[in-house]
Amino acid sequence: MHAVTIVDGHLEWREHPDPEPGTGEVLVRVRAAGLNGADRLQVAGLYPPPPGAPVDIPGLELAGEVLALGPGANRFAVGDRVMAVVAGGGQAQRAVVNERHLLPIPDGIGWVEAGGFAEVFTTAHDALFTQAHLSLGERVCVHGAAGGVGTAGVQLAVAAGASVVATVRNPERHDDVASLGATVVDPDDFAAHGPFDVVLELVGAPNLPADVAALATGGRIAVIGVGAGAKAELNLLALMGARGSICGSTLRARSLEDKADAARRVERHVLGLLADRTVQVPIAATYAMTDAAAAYERFAAGNKFGKIILEDPT
Amino acid sequence: MHAVTIVDGHLEWREHPDPEPGTGEVLVRVRAAGLNGADRLQVAGLYPPPPGAPVDIPGLELAGEVLALGPGANRFAVGDRVMAVVAGGGQAQRAVVNERHLLPIPDGIGWVEAGGFAEVFTTAHDALFTQAHLSLGERVCVHGAAGGVGTAGVQLAVAAGASVVATVRNPERHDDVASLGATVVDPDDFAAHGPFDVVLELVGAPNLPADVAALATGGRIAVIGVGAGAKAELNLLALMGARGSICGSTLRARSLEDKADAARRVERHVLGLLADRTVQVPIAATYAMTDAAAAYERFAAGNKFGKIILEDPT
Repeated sequence: MHAVTIVDGHLEWREHPDPEPGTGEVLVRVRAAGLNGADRLQVAGLYPPPPGAPVDIPGLELAGEVLALGPGANRFAVGDRVMAVVAGGGQAQRAVVNERHLLPIPDGIGWVEAGGFAEVFTTAHDALFTQAHLSLGERVCVHGAAGGVGTAGVQLAVAAGASVVATVRNPERHDDVASLGATVVDPDDFAAHGPFDVVLELVGAPNLPADVAALATGGRIAVIGVGAGAKAELNLLALMGARGSICGSTLRARSLEDKADAARRVERHVLGLLADRTVQVPIAATYAMTDAAAAYERFAAGNKFGKIILEDPT
Repeated sequence: MHAVTIVDGHLEWREHPDPEPGTGEVLVRVRAAGLNGADRLQVAGLYPPPPGAPVDIPGLELAGEVLALGPGANRFAVGDRVMAVVAGGGQAQRAVVNERHLLPIPDGIGWVEAGGFAEVFTTAHDALFTQAHLSLGERVCVHGAAGGVGTAGVQLAVAAGASVVATVRNPERHDDVASLGATVVDPDDFAAHGPFDVVLELVGAPNLPADVAALATGGRIAVIGVGAGAKAELNLLALMGARGSICGSTLRARSLEDKADAARRVERHVLGLLADRTVQVPIAATYAMTDAAAAYERFAAGNKFGKIILEDPT
């Protein structure tokens, strides 16, 4: 097989041996794979993949067909259309995935959309519901709402009957995010639109003081992105006054079991919404995997609505 | 009646009209009332009591006998021995308390101990169990463990089968706190004794960076005191890496219903431990209410083990 390969901090399309599915694993013929912020950090040498993941092939989510089953794998059959969050190695023609991390792709959903679904919807669903316990009628603020996790978070929150305020830095993206059902505001203004029961923080430290100040009684801040900085100021008295909480989370570092649980929650609670088009994966651009360097440049340039997806060139 | 009374930032023993119990309220003849940090702030004009509480009589916890029942009050009878958290006005010969906030005093527990039980045990129980979900075998760090809430927190955590590390600033108090079942360490050293599943933060901002750094995966920090400062530095990436959370809480600002729920949890889960002496209220000193100014001075001097209690002088 060939794979997007990290070679001295840049990307090449290189040949690798096909991976072998172990016990409970499945070999997937990858058709499409999404780009995520962690991929860029990994290429730059700033985010070593967890043990067991390929060290030189990036990619945290993929969609494709089951090619072969490892010993004991029985949740899917050869030929099934599947998608998954993986710990790395997704941007390749073949990838091995623990069968409990696989989700079936609903009929009618194409490879490109499926390839950009798993990581961002699992991350947003976990943060909003498992971590922050978002509930009907609550008021949510989603920071950095135009990106992959942001667009997933806005759609999931709207589908849950929440009232969603979204911050978007670039005015060119306001209408796109508003089309998902959010009230879109400038990042410098959001606190005036609170108080918020839940804040989905995808930007980082600069927002935190206002996040806390704008918290409703019992409000929860879920921090899952720190692209704009990680060292925040926290007013503990304000947090106490709101009886608020701040939780931080990443999917990638979790145990296989935790990831399987997260996948089952998405399968049970979100796949139906994807199938009936209540939620969609906005696609900013697609590239052939052979053109990965250009795709990463586009990702780094920002100002995109939704996902950048790599497709198998063959 | 007479009451400890705030007059231009100092305390006097003054006459007041007896309060009248309203619907669902009970008039209590107060025998003993504990001092808490919030009382000092209120005397200094820094902590206005919530609406409905007496503005010039401090006191957040009390013990005494039921003297009279307001309309509809039926949980207790005249003469019953009761204790409670109140929003203010506890340091007086008479106080009116919502009957759902009252706890029965177990047989064998004297007025002084009962007078210092309700606020600190309700606060510690709420933070450790309702907020931070402390569970059997977990490792807990209690900061500021020699004070009222700290001694309650250490005892409750030990009783729950947790392993407790306690920080105490003054070496003279180490043995006292160790006698409650904790491993007592210097506040500058505690992180070496982690990782912690739960941190009970009674000191404030200076500890927070090390609290986060010493957090176990899935660990929770409950902030309920900020005497040493409220403006903290928070490394969001470290919080994400631990999948940790920080919650802040106060009892005083809550609704009547929330306070009633908290009282019921203490009644069901803690009163039996008080009755069988698994938990106790360490008493640092007692003063007559007529001598409240001296009691507040003793409180402000710090270096005490447990509670300072005011007793009705009559």
